[in-house]
Amino acid sequence: MNNVKAIFEPQSIVLIGSSRIREKVGMASPQLFGNVTYNVKRFFKKKAYVLDVDGYGGYKDLKRLPEIPDLAVVMLPPELSVTQAEKCARLGVKALVMITGGYKEHQRANLLKIRETYGTRILGPNTIMGVVNTANGLNTTFEIDLMPEKGNIAVVSQSGGVGACLLDWACFYDVGISKFAFVGDKIDVNDVDLLRYLGKDRQTRVICLYMEGVKNGREFIEVAREIVKKKPILVLKGGITHESAKRAKSHTASIAGSDQVFDAAFRKAGIIRVENVEELMDMAIALSKQPPMLGDNVAIVSNVGGPAIMAADAVERNGLRLARLSEKTKEEIETLYPGVDATNPIDIIADAKAGRYRKVLELVLADKNVNGALIINMLKSTFFEPKDAKAIPRIASKYRNKPVVDVPVGGEDFEKIHGVLGRSRIPLYNLPEKAAKALRALRAYSVMRERR
Amino acid sequence: MNNVKAIFEPQSIVLIGSSRIREKVGMASPQLFGNVTYNVKRFFKKKAYVLDVDGYGGYKDLKRLPEIPDLAVVMLPPELSVTQAEKCARLGVKALVMITGGYKEHQRANLLKIRETYGTRILGPNTIMGVVNTANGLNTTFEIDLMPEKGNIAVVSQSGGVGACLLDWACFYDVGISKFAFVGDKIDVNDVDLLRYLGKDRQTRVICLYMEGVKNGREFIEVAREIVKKKPILVLKGGITHESAKRAKSHTASIAGSDQVFDAAFRKAGIIRVENVEELMDMAIALSKQPPMLGDNVAIVSNVGGPAIMAADAVERNGLRLARLSEKTKEEIETLYPGVDATNPIDIIADAKAGRYRKVLELVLADKNVNGALIINMLKSTFFEPKDAKAIPRIASKYRNKPVVDVPVGGEDFEKIHGVLGRSRIPLYNLPEKAAKALRALRAYSVMRERR
Repeated sequence: MNNVKAIFEPQSIVLIGSSRIREKVGMASPQLFGNVTYNVKRFFKKKAYVLDVDGYGGYKDLKRLPEIPDLAVVMLPPELSVTQAEKCARLGVKALVMITGGYKEHQRANLLKIRETYGTRILGPNTIMGVVNTANGLNTTFEIDLMPEKGNIAVVSQSGGVGACLLDWACFYDVGISKFAFVGDKIDVNDVDLLRYLGKDRQTRVICLYMEGVKNGREFIEVAREIVKKKPILVLKGGITHESAKRAKSHTASIAGSDQVFDAAFRKAGIIRVENVEELMDMAIALSKQPPMLGDNVAIVSNVGGPAIMAADAVERNGLRLARLSEKTKEEIETLYPGVDATNPIDIIADAKAGRYRKVLELVLADKNVNGALIINMLKSTFFEPKDAKAIPRIASKYRNKPVVDVPVGGEDFEKIHGVLGRSRIPLYNLPEKAAKALRALRAYSVMRERR
Repeated sequence: MNNVKAIFEPQSIVLIGSSRIREKVGMASPQLFGNVTYNVKRFFKKKAYVLDVDGYGGYKDLKRLPEIPDLAVVMLPPELSVTQAEKCARLGVKALVMITGGYKEHQRANLLKIRETYGTRILGPNTIMGVVNTANGLNTTFEIDLMPEKGNIAVVSQSGGVGACLLDWACFYDVGISKFAFVGDKIDVNDVDLLRYLGKDRQTRVICLYMEGVKNGREFIEVAREIVKKKPILVLKGGITHESAKRAKSHTASIAGSDQVFDAAFRKAGIIRVENVEELMDMAIALSKQPPMLGDNVAIVSNVGGPAIMAADAVERNGLRLARLSEKTKEEIETLYPGVDATNPIDIIADAKAGRYRKVLELVLADKNVNGALIINMLKSTFFEPKDAKAIPRIASKYRNKPVVDVPVGGEDFEKIHGVLGRSRIPLYNLPEKAAKALRALRAYSVMRERR
C-alpha cells in the first residue's frame, strides 16, 4: 500500500490522545480526544485502537497493540505529539494524521526527520479535523455525528476553519462527498500528493481545493493538468490581496505568492477558480451531477417572468448565450400553450404544473440550438407544487449531453423543492445567478477538455 | 387622504372576485379569490368586504355595501376587472389594486380613462400579489399565511415573481418588513409615487426596488435624491443585457433603456445598486439594523484562521481597508490572551468563548483606527456555542457609530446562530463575502450623505 493511501484507506488505525491534558491555548483536550474516538467508533468500518498516554482508557503503549496499525491519529500538544509520532514510525505505522497546531521550529524539524528516517507520511500538523472517507466511514473530525453523505466530491482544505465550513455546508445541504482532507501546515503530505491520490480514487469525480499557498508550484500544475483530463479540479484561494496574503503566510507558514501568478498557473493547469465557499460547493455539485455543456446556448424555462429576466442577465454575464430556439420548437410550444410566448427566456406562466414543464423541457432539450437548460420554478405566487418538480429529472435524464439545473427561487421554496429533488441528479440553486455560474463551470470544463 | 396612501392605509377595503370564473391561462380563479380573502380576514385590522360578482358569497353589488371603501382589490379576468374598476371609481373608491394580468391595449386604455375621469389611483394591472402593510395587517397576497414580520424595510417590485421571491426570502429569514408593493405594469401608480409615499412613511427606514424599466426617469432621480438624505434606496435592475432587456420590455411593457444610462442615473440619485435578490436583502438588513460606516477601516475578529483570511480578501475587494489597530489595542489583546496575534484580521483561536469575544470586540471598537467590525464565529471545529453569540450585540450596542456584522460561517452553524441573534440588531451572513458587501453598503451610504 502506498503510504498516502494509508491516510484514507487504512485497514486499522490508532487514536492517540490524553484524557487528562488540556492546552491553555490550543486544541488538545480530553473533549477533542473523546469526540474523535466517538466518531471513529461510530462510523469507521475497520479496526480502531485507542491509546491514552495517561493510561485512563484503552491501551497505554503502542507495543501492546495486537497489530501495527496502518494509520495513527495524534491529538496531543506538540512536544508529546512528536514523541508519539516517532514511536509510531519506528514500529512501522505507514501514515500519521497530526491534529493539533502551534508547533515550534524544532518540533517541525523533528517531524520532518521522522518522515525522512522511516518513510512515514505525515498529514499536518495543524490539520484540526484530519480526514473523512465516506466509503469506509473513517472520520477523525471532533464534531459529534458530523458525517457527510456518500458521493463523488472530494475536498482538500489547507484551513481547518474553511474545511469545517465546507463540511458543515456539505452536511446541511446533502452534498455527496467521497473524501475530505484537512492538510494544515503541509509539512509533508501536500496538495500534489493528495491530487495524485484523488486523481486515481474511483469514488471521486470532482476535486475541490482550498489553499492559501502552494510549495511546489510547477509539479502542482503538471499533476493537475493530467487529472483534469478525467475529472475537474476547482480551487478556492485565500489570501489574494496584499494584506491578507501576508496574513495567510503567518497563518499556515506557506509562501503565498502574488495572486496574478496563481491565476495564470490555475489557468495553465485547466483548474476552475472560484471566489467563495458557496461558489465552490455550487459548481462542484453541478460538475458531479451533470455533464459538461458542449456549447454556450442556454434555454431558460420559468413559471415567473422577473426571475427569468434575471436568469437571462446572469447567463450573459457569465459569458454564455441565450439559446435561439428553432422556429419549429417555438411553434410547437405556442400551439400547445396559447398565451405562452416561446421566445427564450420562456415564461410558461404561473399556472404551469408538471405537465407543462415536462412538455416544454422536452421540446427545448430536443432542439439542436440548445446546449443546456436553466429551469425556474417558484411555488409562491404560482400553481406549482413541490411534487411537480419530479418531472424535471425524468426529462433531463433523457438528454445525457445537455446539463439541466433547477432554481426554486427564494427561502422556503428552495427548502421545499430540495426536499423533493435534493438527492436527484438535478443541481438546485436558490437564485438564478448561482445556477448561471454553475452552467459556466460546466461550460468551462467542456472547453478545457476540447482544447486538450 | 392622499389616494396613494389609500393603497397601504385604507380604513376599509373590498375584495372583488368570482367563486366560479377560472381563466384558462392566467391567474383569475376561485382559489386565488379565496386565498386573498382568507389572508385579508386573518391579518387585516380594519374593515374588509367581499364582493363575489356571481353572488355565491359576500355582497353581489358594490351599492349594497354599508360604506364606500377606500380601496378595492380586483381579481377578475381583464374585461370584468375593468368593469368593476369603473363601478368602484364612480362610487368614490380612492384606489384600486388590479391583481390579474393579460390586459389588451383597449383594456389598458379603459383603465387609464378611469384614472383620468375619477382621480382614482390604480396599482397594476398585473400586480399578482398586490400589497402588504405589516403595520395594519393588510395582505392581498394569495399565499395562505405568508406574512412577514414587522420591521422597517420596504420593498417595491415590478415583477410578481421577483416580489414573491423577496417576500419568501423575508419570511424565511425573519427579515423585518414595513411595506411590500407589487407594481406590475405601472399603468398609473409608479416608482415615483411609491418612493414619495415611502419616503414619508414612518415605519420605513430602507427602501428596496426591483425594476425592469422606469417611465419618468428625471422625476425618479429628483425624488430619489431627496429621499436618500433620510433613508437609503437600493435598486435591483432586471433586463440589463441586450437580449434580456428586449424581453423585459415585453414582460412588463416598460421602456428598458440601456444599462449604462440606468447606472449613471442611479449614481446621480445616490441609489445603491445591487446585483441579485440575496444582495438586496443582505444590504437592506445591514442598513436597517446598523449605522452607516464613517470610514473604510474594518476590523475582523474570528475564531478560525481561514475564514478570517477570506474575510480580509473580501473586505479589500469591496473597496474597504483592513484597519491598522493601534499598538495599545494590540498590546492589550496580546497581554490578555497570550498566543493570540492581534494583527488584523485577528484570529482569537478556536477555543474562544463569549468572554474572549466580548473583551476583544470591546477593545477593537474602542480603537479610533477602527470604523466597523466583521465578526466570524464558527461552531464546527471550535469551542464556541450558540449562546456565546449573545456577547456580540451587547458590546456592539455600546458603539453606536461603528457597524458590526456577524458571520456564522456555513449551513447548520448559520441556522443555529440565527436562532440566537436573528432578531437582534446584528445582521448575520453565512459567508464573509456577503458580510463584506453589507459593510460596503453601510460605507457607501455614509459617503453619499457626506457628499450632500
